[in-house]
Parts: sequence; structure tokens; C-alpha cells
Amino acid sequence: MENFIFYNPTKLIFGKDTIPLIIKEIEKYQYDKILLLAGGGSIKQNGVYDQIILALKASNINHIEQWGVRPNPVLSHAESALELARKENVQAILAVGGGSVLDEAKAIAAGFFVNDIWGLYEHVYPIKKALPVFTILTLSGTGSEMDGIAVLTNEKENKKWFISSSLLYPKVSVIDPSIQMSLPWHQTVNGAIDAITHTQEFYFMGDNEEISLSMDEAIIRTIIKCVDKLKIDENDYNSRANLAWSATLALNGISGIALRGGDWATHRIEHAISALHPEVAHGAGLGVIMPAWIKYVYKYNQKTFERWAKEIWNEDTVDSAIQKLKEKYRFWSAPTTLRELGISENEIQSIAKNALLNGIIGNLKNLSFVDIVEILKIAY
Amino acid sequence: MENFIFYNPTKLIFGKDTIPLIIKEIEKYQYDKILLLAGGGSIKQNGVYDQIILALKASNINHIEQWGVRPNPVLSHAESALELARKENVQAILAVGGGSVLDEAKAIAAGFFVNDIWGLYEHVYPIKKALPVFTILTLSGTGSEMDGIAVLTNEKENKKWFISSSLLYPKVSVIDPSIQMSLPWHQTVNGAIDAITHTQEFYFMGDNEEISLSMDEAIIRTIIKCVDKLKIDENDYNSRANLAWSATLALNGISGIALRGGDWATHRIEHAISALHPEVAHGAGLGVIMPAWIKYVYKYNQKTFERWAKEIWNEDTVDSAIQKLKEKYRFWSAPTTLRELGISENEIQSIAKNALLNGIIGNLKNLSFVDIVEILKIAY
Repeated sequence: MENFIFYNPTKLIFGKDTIPLIIKEIEKYQYDKILLLAGGGSIKQNGVYDQIILALKASNINHIEQWGVRPNPVLSHAESALELARKENVQAILAVGGGSVLDEAKAIAAGFFVNDIWGLYEHVYPIKKALPVFTILTLSGTGSEMDGIAVLTNEKENKKWFISSSLLYPKVSVIDPSIQMSLPWHQTVNGAIDAITHTQEFYFMGDNEEISLSMDEAIIRTIIKCVDKLKIDENDYNSRANLAWSATLALNGISGIALRGGDWATHRIEHAISALHPEVAHGAGLGVIMPAWIKYVYKYNQKTFERWAKEIWNEDTVDSAIQKLKEKYRFWSAPTTLRELGISENEIQSIAKNALLNGIIGNLKNLSFVDIVEILKIAY
Repeated sequence: MENFIFYNPTKLIFGKDTIPLIIKEIEKYQYDKILLLAGGGSIKQNGVYDQIILALKASNINHIEQWGVRPNPVLSHAESALELARKENVQAILAVGGGSVLDEAKAIAAGFFVNDIWGLYEHVYPIKKALPVFTILTLSGTGSEMDGIAVLTNEKENKKWFISSSLLYPKVSVIDPSIQMSLPWHQTVNGAIDAITHTQEFYFMGDNEEISLSMDEAIIRTIIKCVDKLKIDENDYNSRANLAWSATLALNGISGIALRGGDWATHRIEHAISALHPEVAHGAGLGVIMPAWIKYVYKYNQKTFERWAKEIWNEDTVDSAIQKLKEKYRFWSAPTTLRELGISENEIQSIAKNALLNGIIGNLKNLSFVDIVEILKIAY
């Protein structure tokens, strides 16, 4: 087992009727004014917004609002929000939404102390300081509620990149799984596939890390069980809750202990796809790429891929396990081919090129341009 | 699934050759003087002490030393150490040892700001402040390296009680599993049984918390696998490492998510035993009590006990799983009866009385005096 450091300072408040508690937490820090960052307005439908406003008033915390964070959040929107945050001199950010809102909040938080946000992503300067971020998660999958990662798309340059820092862990995050009952089905599924993929990005790097591998199997199996149950009853609170906590565990450090930092080629390829096709949901893209990636690379760590085939799918070969994985995704009505994502075959080269814009990709196997093209062809 | 809060701010540094890194961490806080707390001197044999002293000198951090923390640490020793800490005006404590040293360090850390340490245990006053604690763990099992709990024995009053506070989480803990290769076999086993028991204190409260139950099964299975391997080769680093991280997970919050705070009757009964018999090692006592407790209470949550029987022991009945558990402990040369611990049958009443000194015990089933006597008879 390799050496590792585990450090995750986020306080996570989880369960029914927990939304107003985040304001009590913000109150403890005695901030005068915060930025409330949100997406397209679903939080006005599901009652989350009203609860927040009520609690803010009760706590005498001033706030300004910035709406309109898009799925696959973009630099230009983060820049406008940052301008507002500076003008109003906010002391903290409250992000309310899914991974996109949370990630953009972190980008603004770090961007607050530098000249331009994108410079952080290009590593022009390091992250030395960030505004404190608080989050209310409304769609499980991202892991952003309990990690220090922020993905952002520079839409002018077609770059979907990420930053990572211990300063970007949310101070406090709240997850009320009952809120997620009102999600469209495909969003629940995309979140679940995102979480399965996070776990597997680590898992497939494994060798003899028995505790991490068996915990990761517990996470993957639980997510599959929960989505299967939610397919029958989307309002099954217990499955929502088990799924939500599993998704947090998939990326809060626990799932990746001693697993060499994970592979992440699948994520990098998906980021290239949605940099060029912002309409592709992150989870949907991952669900298409990972089975193809597994097929292409499993010979490089056959023992662990065969363990996965056996433990998760009760199959003797990796190939038949891949089939089962794809069947499961189809059963959940998720796409399993690039075609279904609306990508045409002649875009494969430009996707592969985009995926390599930010340096070497793949930790289990470093992928060349040709490798990525082959994986995309399998996924097509 | 019940609501929960997860918050664990300890930074854990894990792996080979990590001992000196703790001093680098202390250096970041710019403390001038620390108290080094240790046990009977094994850290002078295994080289840990020399590494610490070298690193302290290199970092120009002053220190004073207090040795002699006993297994089942006692109030009088904590009081002497506290006197020294006050006289020398230390700013932090570095605990080097197993759970006893770590727990006593936390007691001193909280005691530093009140009139008398034991008042904290009697809840005369709350824990509002504590000195920062740093730890180097030399025996896995306790969980103290990544929790806010401190057990202490008031030897004059035969009370082995605990305190718990978020202020008592170590700032940083270091675990170098290779250090544990030099442990006597029974200490390795006692630590492993302690960790299995921690996990099971939570697990048996379970119902439909699929993710927590399946992660706990992963922890228990991994610990069993690792001890079995270490029985063949005590120097198997990978098994030491997997065991050590599993033991941390057993009590750092992860294993107990949404499991109603755990049961803890087994621990409370064991504390009564070692309050009266300080020579009984904590893990050894737990290994004797828990199988008896399971036998006595399993009808109160039969579904989950049967799941445990199946998932851990591949048995259809709880009774046969208990037999397998005891066989496993015997295989590891651990005691499985009170007799083997050196307890006589006529002490059962006084142990049961002592166990009830600090209020109601048992969460799955509140245990009366008669219940505890029955459990102790089964264990006899």
C-alpha cells in the first residue's frame, strides 16, 4: 500500500429538513454579506430558495444573488459573478445547486484574490487564498460538496479544465436527499454514473489495497442498488439518501486512499467532449467513455479488472462485465454510445486533440493521440 | 436513513518513513514548546524516539518529556503530566504510542483549561477549549488518532469513563505501519479486535443504511484477512497497512454514518472489567464480551445480525456465526472467556454494578443490571 495523506475539513450536514442549518453555520462566522450563487431556477420550484431567504432574514445576513450558472459552467459567467462579488464586497459564497454551481463558486472564491480566474487554470499563479464557500447540494454525483476541485469551461478556447486545492473544500455543505425526488430521471442517472465513474477512476489503479478496493466495491454496488430501486419509485427516500452519501464518498478522499491518485483519462476525454459539445451532460459522457476505456486498457491491470468483473457483475471476464455495465446503463435509459450523445464520427480527431491540450492523460496507461482515437472509436 | 453530521478535521499522514513529518506539521503552527507524552519506552527500542528528537532539533522546537503512560491510562498520571505541562507552559502535546497515550494526551489537553481533569468526565463543566494534540500512532485499533474521544480511568474510584468533543480531534496524526512489525502478537490481535468491535458497535444498529453496512462489512472482512495473513508473516507490510487504515476507518466517523450513534454496551461492560482489572487489555476484554452480547441481544435486530452472519461468516444463523467469530479469535490466540481474562465468577455482580455507574448502557437494547449479569455469565 502506498503512502497517503487524508485531510478533508468540510463539515457535512445530511438529511431531511437540513437546508436552513447552513445559514446557522454561516452565522457562526459572523459574515455581513454573502453571494448566493444558483443555476436556472429549479430551487425556486422545489422550495429550497424560500427556505434560504427565510433563514437569511432570521439571521440578519445580507446577500446578493447571481443566477444562471449553466451545466458545464463557463468562464464568462464566473467572471460576471466575480465582478459582482467584488463590487458588493462579499465575504463568503453560498452555492445552491448541482456540481456546476458548486464548481463555479469555487472558481469565483479563488478568483477573488487574483487578476483573472483562468490564470489559475493555466497555472499562471497558485491558489494562495480563497473566499469561504458554503454549499447546498441539489443533485448528487459531483462530489464537489466535499472536495477541493472546481471544473470550469473557457468557452472561447474550448477548454474544460480543473483546479484543485485544499483551500477550496467547502466550509460546510448540506445535502437534503428529499430535494432530489423532484429531479428529472436522467439527472439522477447522470449523477449516479458520475459517482460510479469517480470510484472506478480510483479502483482500477488498485493492486493490493484490500480495504480501499472493498470499500469501493461497496460504493459501486450500493449506487447500482439504489438507482435500480429509484427506477421503481423515484420518491424512495432511503434510496435517495444511500445514493447521495455514496456519491459523496466516491470523491471525498475515502474511495481513493492509496490508489495512486486515480487514472482520470475517462474524465479528461469527457471534458474534451463537453468542451466541444456543452449540451452533453458530464455523467452521460462518462457513461459512454468509461466502458470503452476499460476495454482498451484492462490488460494493463488485468487482476484488478477481473476482480471488478467478479465482485460487481459476477462475471469471469472483463468483456462480459463491460456488457453488463452497458446493459445496466441502458436499463437506466442512459446513452452508451457517442452517437447517442449526438457526436459524429468525424469529430473524433478533434476531441482527441482537445483532450491532450492540458498535458499527459491517463495514469494506469498514458494515452497517446492514437490511443484516445481508438477509445473514441470503441465508444462510437 | 437517519440524518447525520460528518466532520473530521484531523489530517492523517500515513505510510513508511512518515514519522519525522509530524514535526514539520507542528512547525507550521510555530509553537515554541511542546509536551512529548509516551508510554513505557518501546519507542526507544523501535527507533521512533530517535527520529522525533532529531526532527525536533532540526526544527528548533523545544520539548519536555513525560513518560510512563500505562495501558488503561490513569487519572493520577494525567494529573502529573498536566502539572508539568502547566509549569513548562507548553503550547501543544505530541502523543507517541497506542490508544492509551493518545487518550491521556487528549485528557491533558482539555484539562489544561479547567480546574480538574476528572470534572470533565463527570460533566461538571463542558469542554470549551483544548491544547492542540498531535499524534504518532504505534498500535492500530484505538481509533484515537482520528477521533475526539478520550478514555481515562479514575483509579481511586474504579471508574473507566470517556469524554468526547470536536475540540479533541488531533490536528495531525501520523501512522507508519512498518513500526507495528515489532509489536508482540497479542497486541496486534487486541488492536484488531478493538477495531472489529468498534465497527460492530455501529453495524448492529443498522437497518436499511446499505452504504454504511456494506462499508462496515468491507472493514471487518479486511481486518480478518489481514490478521490471518500476519499470523503467517508478522512483517507483511501490506497487511499491516491495510489493517492500520481499516482500524482508523472503524472509528473516524465513516463506519458509523446514520447508525444511531452505535450501541456501545460492549465497550461499557469492558470498561467496567478493566476499571476493576487494569491488567486486562481493552481489546482482549472486548473480544470476550461482544460474542456474549450478540447472543443475548440479537433477537432485537435479527435481520441485521443475520446479514452479518451471512456476509462476514457465510453462516445462516447468528449462533453459528458467533461460534465462527470465537473460533477466529481463538485461532489468533485471543481469549474468548472471562475465565481466561482472570476474572472469577463471583466478580460478575460488581462488574455489572460498575458498568451502570455512568448511566444507561446499550442503545440497541438498554441493559439492566440483570441483563448485564446474564451477558457476563454467557461470557464466563
